[in-house]
Amino acid sequence: MRAVLDDGARLQRMLDFLVALARAEAAVGLMPALASDEIANAAKPERYDVKALGEDAAAAGNIVIPLIDALIAEVAKTDAAAAAYVRWGASSQDVLDTALVLELRAAIDVLIADLGRAIDGFAALVGRHRRTATVGRNAMQHASPMPFGLKLAGYAAALARSRERLRRLRREALVLQFGDAVGTLAALNDRGLEVAERLAALLDLPLPEAPWHSHRDRLAEVASAFAILTGTCGKIARDISLLMQTDIAEAFEPTAPGRSGAATLPHKRSHAAVATALAAAAMAPNLLSTILAAQVHEHEGAHGSWQAEWPAFSMLALVTSGALAATVRIAEGLEIDSERMRANLGETRGMIMADAVSLALTPKLGRQQAQQIVEAASRKAADSKRDLQAVLSEDDRVKLNLTVGELATLFEPMAYQGVAQTLIDRIVGALQLRAGKR
Amino acid sequence: MRAVLDDGARLQRMLDFLVALARAEAAVGLMPALASDEIANAAKPERYDVKALGEDAAAAGNIVIPLIDALIAEVAKTDAAAAAYVRWGASSQDVLDTALVLELRAAIDVLIADLGRAIDGFAALVGRHRRTATVGRNAMQHASPMPFGLKLAGYAAALARSRERLRRLRREALVLQFGDAVGTLAALNDRGLEVAERLAALLDLPLPEAPWHSHRDRLAEVASAFAILTGTCGKIARDISLLMQTDIAEAFEPTAPGRSGAATLPHKRSHAAVATALAAAAMAPNLLSTILAAQVHEHEGAHGSWQAEWPAFSMLALVTSGALAATVRIAEGLEIDSERMRANLGETRGMIMADAVSLALTPKLGRQQAQQIVEAASRKAADSKRDLQAVLSEDDRVKLNLTVGELATLFEPMAYQGVAQTLIDRIVGALQLRAGKR
Amino acid sequence: MRAVLDDGARLQRMLDFLVALARAEAAVGLMPALASDEIANAAKPERYDVKALGEDAAAAGNIVIPLIDALIAEVAKTDAAAAAYVRWGASSQDVLDTALVLELRAAIDVLIADLGRAIDGFAALVGRHRRTATVGRNAMQHASPMPFGLKLAGYAAALARSRERLRRLRREALVLQFGDAVGTLAALNDRGLEVAERLAALLDLPLPEAPWHSHRDRLAEVASAFAILTGTCGKIARDISLLMQTDIAEAFEPTAPGRSGAATLPHKRSHAAVATALAAAAMAPNLLSTILAAQVHEHEGAHGSWQAEWPAFSMLALVTSGALAATVRIAEGLEIDSERMRANLGETRGMIMADAVSLALTPKLGRQQAQQIVEAASRKAADSKRDLQAVLSEDDRVKLNLTVGELATLFEPMAYQGVAQTLIDRIVGALQLRAGKR
Amino acid sequence: MRAVLDDGARLQRMLDFLVALARAEAAVGLMPALASDEIANAAKPERYDVKALGEDAAAAGNIVIPLIDALIAEVAKTDAAAAAYVRWGASSQDVLDTALVLELRAAIDVLIADLGRAIDGFAALVGRHRRTATVGRNAMQHASPMPFGLKLAGYAAALARSRERLRRLRREALVLQFGDAVGTLAALNDRGLEVAERLAALLDLPLPEAPWHSHRDRLAEVASAFAILTGTCGKIARDISLLMQTDIAEAFEPTAPGRSGAATLPHKRSHAAVATALAAAAMAPNLLSTILAAQVHEHEGAHGSWQAEWPAFSMLALVTSGALAATVRIAEGLEIDSERMRANLGETRGMIMADAVSLALTPKLGRQQAQQIVEAASRKAADSKRDLQAVLSEDDRVKLNLTVGELATLFEPMAYQGVAQTLIDRIVGALQLRAGKR
Repeated sequence: MRAVLDDGARLQRMLDFLVALARAEAAVGLMPALASDEIANAAKPERYDVKALGEDAAAAGNIVIPLIDALIAEVAKTDAAAAAYVRWGASSQDVLDTALVLELRAAIDVLIADLGRAIDGFAALVGRHRRTATVGRNAMQHASPMPFGLKLAGYAAALARSRERLRRLRREALVLQFGDAVGTLAALNDRGLEVAERLAALLDLPLPEAPWHSHRDRLAEVASAFAILTGTCGKIARDISLLMQTDIAEAFEPTAPGRSGAATLPHKRSHAAVATALAAAAMAPNLLSTILAAQVHEHEGAHGSWQAEWPAFSMLALVTSGALAATVRIAEGLEIDSERMRANLGETRGMIMADAVSLALTPKLGRQQAQQIVEAASRKAADSKRDLQAVLSEDDRVKLNLTVGELATLFEPMAYQGVAQTLIDRIVGALQLRAGKR
Repeated sequence: MRAVLDDGARLQRMLDFLVALARAEAAVGLMPALASDEIANAAKPERYDVKALGEDAAAAGNIVIPLIDALIAEVAKTDAAAAAYVRWGASSQDVLDTALVLELRAAIDVLIADLGRAIDGFAALVGRHRRTATVGRNAMQHASPMPFGLKLAGYAAALARSRERLRRLRREALVLQFGDAVGTLAALNDRGLEVAERLAALLDLPLPEAPWHSHRDRLAEVASAFAILTGTCGKIARDISLLMQTDIAEAFEPTAPGRSGAATLPHKRSHAAVATALAAAAMAPNLLSTILAAQVHEHEGAHGSWQAEWPAFSMLALVTSGALAATVRIAEGLEIDSERMRANLGETRGMIMADAVSLALTPKLGRQQAQQIVEAASRKAADSKRDLQAVLSEDDRVKLNLTVGELATLFEPMAYQGVAQTLIDRIVGALQLRAGKR
Repeated sequence: MRAVLDDGARLQRMLDFLVALARAEAAVGLMPALASDEIANAAKPERYDVKALGEDAAAAGNIVIPLIDALIAEVAKTDAAAAAYVRWGASSQDVLDTALVLELRAAIDVLIADLGRAIDGFAALVGRHRRTATVGRNAMQHASPMPFGLKLAGYAAALARSRERLRRLRREALVLQFGDAVGTLAALNDRGLEVAERLAALLDLPLPEAPWHSHRDRLAEVASAFAILTGTCGKIARDISLLMQTDIAEAFEPTAPGRSGAATLPHKRSHAAVATALAAAAMAPNLLSTILAAQVHEHEGAHGSWQAEWPAFSMLALVTSGALAATVRIAEGLEIDSERMRANLGETRGMIMADAVSLALTPKLGRQQAQQIVEAASRKAADSKRDLQAVLSEDDRVKLNLTVGELATLFEPMAYQGVAQTLIDRIVGALQLRAGKR
Repeated sequence: MRAVLDDGARLQRMLDFLVALARAEAAVGLMPALASDEIANAAKPERYDVKALGEDAAAAGNIVIPLIDALIAEVAKTDAAAAAYVRWGASSQDVLDTALVLELRAAIDVLIADLGRAIDGFAALVGRHRRTATVGRNAMQHASPMPFGLKLAGYAAALARSRERLRRLRREALVLQFGDAVGTLAALNDRGLEVAERLAALLDLPLPEAPWHSHRDRLAEVASAFAILTGTCGKIARDISLLMQTDIAEAFEPTAPGRSGAATLPHKRSHAAVATALAAAAMAPNLLSTILAAQVHEHEGAHGSWQAEWPAFSMLALVTSGALAATVRIAEGLEIDSERMRANLGETRGMIMADAVSLALTPKLGRQQAQQIVEAASRKAADSKRDLQAVLSEDDRVKLNLTVGELATLFEPMAYQGVAQTLIDRIVGALQLRAGKR
């Protein structure tokens, strides 16, 4: 992602727009072919000093203004008349907005590739752990057993929904911006749409029904999709960070590459991936907030809100890709301690299975009495620090309705997993269906 | 929208879930039919004290817990055994999340209806003002003339994109949540999916591939769509508020109903609609931020982030509908002073037409010289406080290439509108195409 | 806090301003004394329909406009001439802003009272647990032992800093707003400051050097202090929620009043207080963000940003007081399981004391060798699942430098607490010093 | 500010901490003096590759870990034993947090210097424009006349309040962080406080009552002060941007240095300064939100929230200083067109003076009748597009009570400025009083 957001890559995309514009105008006869050649020749990124442009941008208000000045100067070196055609019919905002669209397209391609890795990684883990028993936790308290594979499948499914969002937005939301100062393309007389069509084709971008310079809802939707994806990465990281606690120790992010010797004590585990994803999930919503508030543009061109959009979008793209890269590391290297999971299931001395017992007694004793028996036994077990199974095995009503073997089976966590295996199949099936799509 | 978000309506939706659950479980034989009848009978909103439930909710952590207690007590009055079946197999979160989904569906229906009115209102204004000349402004400075209808068409198009988003999310994102404590539906043994299918059908909600209690991305996407819509309303309101300035006075929101006598001085105009929409656009992104940050749920059930989601979603729905209602008022009652628009076009003594003149001279003198002539004349006009047309008419190079009549035509704003009329046609055409769709 | 933010209380504060204004103007002779009496008589909250005013407010843009209309009508019933003096010389914004200041003063008083309870509660717990050994955790992994009292003292100290902030802001930031439409008080001729002084005295508010209607920095600072306090409550709640985990079980928020029977299983603990505080901490920063962004007022009176400030401030005050009330419940009722704390200290089989051993060996073997011995032994202990103490006791270099008793002492957690007791004294001392202050 | 936030400066501050720590420990005898010398020798920024450290930081989770590794390696080159003393008794977080405190101190010094320039600039403008009549605007509509100097004095006063905040926080909030892993300083045995005192002295930072690693409220307060200041800059920029509108044209930010030739048309003005300040004001509240939400640290050391704090603080410091630099440019170079201000006062044909007339008639006719006369005349003037003064001069009740000269005087804007001049004196007086303070 840093390559996508690199200053040089950005300069390239702005020059790409300016060259394509010249080519399109030459093609419809608005500009001498020679002028467009001169512009294309001069528009080589290596001829420009990104740093100097950046400094001039601060004074000028945006980077396009000094870039255009520099490009004009460069063209004028060989052909003063051609220089007058630079950026003809387009505004600075056209250049910047379309360059941003191209940048977001490249960013989405990077994200979709990483999403593929993360989804595949979790799907592979689902395969290995679809029957590994673990504690399901509510409000961070033990609730019921569940297969760890269901948790992992949930991660893959959520990431896959983000991939769908990005695929759709890549097709629908990333469209050419070309409208000149007020969206009429008046400087091109009545040829504006022709130029726009050719320009869009050259940049391989859809042409929208009209310029959108002062309506930023498409960008806002892309930003939302980035923040939603980061939120999913954060949710996964939160889970893993909780499982990594010394007191729980059920799963761990992989040791960071090159950090093997760093953790001097065995119980101290690398947590850079979860920390990165959680930090990203803490930042993304507020960066999104800036971008959404920036929708309130003034008339045909804002000042202030527009300028806030750029750095917020860059930072949002960065933290999104950072969160996703951390998630890829987790998905591809998660260390899972299924023995510890099973041990932790016993932490409540069988109380995590109370609902299973109550359910088994219901057909025989009715739901009400079944619940009362189990709750009373649970309190007794807690007070006496004994296992619930032992306490229940002394209860006459239980003995009458369940054999010792039946009771023991009720304390087998994976005997109480409802439709979890079917849900895993449904999720995995849907993933496979979507994997091939674009 | 206040009706949708009303406490009574919320209670109704939670009871709807609980009754449908009982019906579904009775249908597959998990619950005596009689018990489901008793639950349905007891689940009448009028039997419950919303205020008392709200107070208990504060202590219990959410409203479902006291509601279930109250419902159990109500059922037990006539059938103690049936009472044990209340909410069987579902968690409090299932009740609240599905009730939220139902609420959002109702909210979206209200928004779509209002969007229809706003889009129609602006479309009608486009019809009347598609050739009304107005000042296009960049960074709040005069840039170029444009037809006011293009601006209005842009509003309609942006609102229509939001309508598309909401229609899609209504279909795809608003799905049943039903997973019990950890998403396995274990309390229903192997019948969980059967119950889920019937429950979804009874509530007319799609059944997703798996429960989503700890993956909130669908809700986050709905919230994003709300905030994006509010942003568009804010953008429109910002424009109108700027046009309403005493110094500009080109367009005005309609006088508030019943406020006719309030503004004691004629130049003081009602601005409640734009203020409402702008305030909403200032609040929505931050409410969205809270909802997105709340994606970071812990394990199978969060505490904290989940509780933050509720009030943020309510307030977001409220401000979104407030912003949209204000936009409807603007769309249906905007007062437009086209005479003043034309007068303001003259504010710069013709300099707003400088590009048109430069464009006209380009074929004859080349783009470079054309620009130099016009810029020099503009500076001369500014220094001498004369009209640009007058200054240009004295320039020999101009006289040689343009007749007096040709020059005068170049100062007619709507002669320099590029492809604006075609763009309006494209937008209006797309609107009509989408209007019929669902 | 709900009483402070109640609609009736708000109405009262607006009427308080209007009456005090009339009294002040009568006192300097700008208004007939009789007119001010009539206004005071009419300004009884019970004469007004808060609901109806609220509905009119939606159309008018703010509540003061319909309230003034209603007050004028009420005064006119007995004295039409007096009615013309209602709100003379003040703007709607003066009424609303000063009413907000009065509201914030009342809110701060509530918060300071609750802060006193929370600080006292934690200070009392410090007294009981200043030597209770617990695990200090970094990145949720075991780091070093520490006295639980130090943790508790940290909570009290952070809350006390928030109390200082609120006390200072109550004195300095909550000042009268009175400037009329543009801050000149022109309608009062040259008597504006005299009226302002009397008005400030009547409302017991400081008079600032000038009106501040379009400079909201003081309010922004109050809002920041609210959000900072909520953040501290969230930090405390996060700690407790982590300690409440079934797998850790070291401390618990008290059972919610009236919820005793609700948790049917003994290991399920009430978590409403921590959830409330965490939800508040998730909402407050974004509400603050809205208030801070609203500083960008247009000229002498904003529209949009000002209207966003009201609901954001109300909600911020509510969540702040909710977070603090939850913290009071925790501070006054925290259940601490010091046995479990000690047990959890042993979770790593002594590795949490590795640094203590290394420190003890340093004077004899040098820091480098000391660290190497302990790290090697730690790895050995981890691999063989033995206690670190046992492994070390077999090491010749250790045996040479430490007796068996000395080594055993090094594994006593509270023998390795550095200056923790002194830090507790410093914190408690500072608390006592500040307790008496205002 | 870029110099303060430069990677090299940051490296220097971290090394400063590490050297001071070694010196302090050597001074109390915990480390051989020679070892501290070796550490000081090795701790030269030029020996470290900032870029490589940054890359390792991504894997390690923070920059201190690779920096310590590198410093140890550097010390070990000459003295392996000394290397073991690097960072003894301090955590990575101690290094980073204290380095952040030092960075914020440097940042505040830059801000205070710029605040001085901005305040002085506006104060000088107040001197020149304290009697320049301008339109006071409410909701962007003409409200009443006011001296432009009052507006400018308001800017200076608000900036001065921010200066006070920063001065106070520099003294009170920027304190040493030194607590090691869990805040007990156990690795220093019972000498921790002695070391802390010397370390604080060496770094010229106050020593707080206890370490604050997991209580970030002081940092949150500094961040709030930054965002509040940025909000004030945004408010000023909003005003100027509105005044710069082509249709109003009352005041302008100075032309950007080196951009003289860029604006080809005379009515297009440079707006980079206001755009920068407005963009900053749009970003700062959300960056603050991230920092405040990051208060919710887990136990003795967070992961995720802490990592979000760094980039948010950097960006906040940058946008704050950018906003302030833009404000300095405005304060030092604002171009004011007082003729245009006077012309715009006439935009409503005298209606902006309606209140002045009504006030003058009140003593003679009573407030009620006075208002009715003026309102009726205003409506008549609006309908007939005549001047209010002319219409009023035909009204018999007016003629009876006011001479032609008296009526004319009432239409002189600066005759109706209330206590504006006194308010200006109060503000300027307070500024002078505070200017000398620290």
